[in-house]
Amino acid sequence: MLEVADARAEVLARVRPPVPLVQSVAGMTGAVIAADVAADRDSPPFDKSLRDGYAVRSTDRFDAPLRVVEEIPAGAVPVKAIGAGECARIFTGAPIPAGADAVVMQEDATAVGDGVTTRHAPRPGQWVYRRGAEMRAGEVVVPAGSVLTPAAAGVLAGVGCVEAPLYLAPEVSIVATGDELVDVCRTPGPGQIRNTNGPMLAALTATAGGVPFDHGIARDTRDALRDTLGAALAEANVVLIAGGVSAGKFDLVPGVLEELGVTAHFHKVRMKPGKPLLFGTRGDTLVFGLPGNPVSALVCFELFVRPALRALAGHADPGPRTATLPLAAPVAEVNDRPTYRPAVLEPAAVSWAVRPLEGGSAPDLRGMAPADALLVLPAGDARYDTGTPVPVVLMDRKN
Amino acid sequence: MLEVADARAEVLARVRPPVPLVQSVAGMTGAVIAADVAADRDSPPFDKSLRDGYAVRSTDRFDAPLRVVEEIPAGAVPVKAIGAGECARIFTGAPIPAGADAVVMQEDATAVGDGVTTRHAPRPGQWVYRRGAEMRAGEVVVPAGSVLTPAAAGVLAGVGCVEAPLYLAPEVSIVATGDELVDVCRTPGPGQIRNTNGPMLAALTATAGGVPFDHGIARDTRDALRDTLGAALAEANVVLIAGGVSAGKFDLVPGVLEELGVTAHFHKVRMKPGKPLLFGTRGDTLVFGLPGNPVSALVCFELFVRPALRALAGHADPGPRTATLPLAAPVAEVNDRPTYRPAVLEPAAVSWAVRPLEGGSAPDLRGMAPADALLVLPAGDARYDTGTPVPVVLMDRKN
Repeated sequence: MLEVADARAEVLARVRPPVPLVQSVAGMTGAVIAADVAADRDSPPFDKSLRDGYAVRSTDRFDAPLRVVEEIPAGAVPVKAIGAGECARIFTGAPIPAGADAVVMQEDATAVGDGVTTRHAPRPGQWVYRRGAEMRAGEVVVPAGSVLTPAAAGVLAGVGCVEAPLYLAPEVSIVATGDELVDVCRTPGPGQIRNTNGPMLAALTATAGGVPFDHGIARDTRDALRDTLGAALAEANVVLIAGGVSAGKFDLVPGVLEELGVTAHFHKVRMKPGKPLLFGTRGDTLVFGLPGNPVSALVCFELFVRPALRALAGHADPGPRTATLPLAAPVAEVNDRPTYRPAVLEPAAVSWAVRPLEGGSAPDLRGMAPADALLVLPAGDARYDTGTPVPVVLMDRKN
Repeated sequence: MLEVADARAEVLARVRPPVPLVQSVAGMTGAVIAADVAADRDSPPFDKSLRDGYAVRSTDRFDAPLRVVEEIPAGAVPVKAIGAGECARIFTGAPIPAGADAVVMQEDATAVGDGVTTRHAPRPGQWVYRRGAEMRAGEVVVPAGSVLTPAAAGVLAGVGCVEAPLYLAPEVSIVATGDELVDVCRTPGPGQIRNTNGPMLAALTATAGGVPFDHGIARDTRDALRDTLGAALAEANVVLIAGGVSAGKFDLVPGVLEELGVTAHFHKVRMKPGKPLLFGTRGDTLVFGLPGNPVSALVCFELFVRPALRALAGHADPGPRTATLPLAAPVAEVNDRPTYRPAVLEPAAVSWAVRPLEGGSAPDLRGMAPADALLVLPAGDARYDTGTPVPVVLMDRKN
């Protein structure tokens, strides 16, 4: 049986190169930019005052009041050069006039008739932000592969970049399978339960930067599966199928996928929960057959699907994000496979500790709701005391 | 001058109680639920098989093949009771028939004519998920105040909760001020720069769960400010104003806000950057006058605006999220105020370390783009070696 790391490498090797499209950058925080963006001009575009005060010549004598020859608010253009014994009233953000090379803050100056006196002689360049000090025209200010953070959105605005090639968000079709399932809007009859995987996988997809399309529930017949999975495959970069991938008589998904031209690359991974995971491709479309148990499906999403979606969205580091953190409580678990247990990060004196949540690997989705990490326990007899550093997978959440 | 913690307490004390509205829960990951949601029925709703195999009586003798009296796929309802020497073919998710109390996995059973033999006698309850083991009808499964995680979305679907009272996302009006500013779509003339704060604050607002409305640029005149700020105040829970809050001749914002009926609660905070921060209210509307420098505005957003938006959105813990982490590189800074420097978290042998970014407190937004934390340095002579634990504020980012 494949190990988790090898299975993930197999998935990532099948991800086609991400596809860029020129789009408006507004509202695209979290997207990845596909080409270098350069400054169209120097920033600041002129020597700029960093304070309200007086633009002066630092080489002046400052033994008598300086004569104020002009007032330069932000947005204005100075028209006079500053000579010996002269200065200009200036405001934050305004261009330094010719001749001047420093600014005296208004708190350090006193108006005397038509002029001003200063408390100290200024250093050359004092409170002046030099033209091009932040960026030079032509310089790359947001390199290809950068994530659009809010600060990057500000930088792009500063260079007049309204549209840029951004990697497309992957489109994800979601299908739940099982004759026992009814839609969330319906009251389950005897023997039935509601479809929890569809809404959960749609929410997970959105947190991973994907666009979910919920294809609802497919019945456990070859015909129903062929119709629904065929439609799901036709229009998505990724297809997530929940349930129907074990080896039982009614687990028809692997056979139907084969009929539909999907090549299976692996089926079963050495992990708990999530062992029955199936992964295949048809052309560039990635197909994940996830276990029907929602906790197992969620763990498989974090370990395999989220990295695939990040790679498709152009992230250089697909993850999952991992760390080593001390345990906030002891754990004891005996298993034949590496085990992933829901956990939460807690502040510690330095850094964080990780606390396993109750319920562990039992099939209880409610216990997963507050989790922001998965504790990774090795196969065998895993008993660790409080304080032992253990590996964790960080679950990405938008909250 | 107010300390940061006192200023934040003043802001949070003015946040009106969050407002719930019954809404569809689909697509609302990250929102906070305003009322308890209870299970409408037991889950599982019946004793359920956890495996494909055979439903048996654990007290049976297992010395001869058991007769298969029925086949129960998932979604079906068993019609026969299991007597001594009998069993039912059963599949994962299907109801356990009357009389049976355990499941033998198909891997542990062998078909013999009309019956099956099992390798081992089962434990009572083996591979049976008992009715109500996950949740009981009437039991609260998503308590008021919970964040809608993907797992919570699955739990809500499981109990048929399509709509629920969710706290409304705060609406945030954004106004940039300054005669030197032009819109990002325009080419700046002499003395002009593009408006970077508007797009940056809109992106920050979205990452904090708010809905941004960009009111563009207001000129530095009383009339222009009165018009734009009046419109911004009329329709928002929060107004963010970038620039015009220092003490200069053209810093008209405080006076215009007063004219518009905004009560100022503080103006200036003991921090660097971000000292000129102004905070006021009009009725329930919170008004932040942020410094015009984008780095200062960003730091003020993380320390004051994001917590206010989280409180308005119903989060019990408004933040900011903080931690203590060892330094990945030495820092040296001398300042008269507590100082916030952009930094990134790096994996360490255990946990993470925090690395200050180059550029520090200089007004360079580009240097902020990769930051995911702010390093907090105390006032005075702050010199720390690599490895020293230091406080950090974690910046929330959706990537």
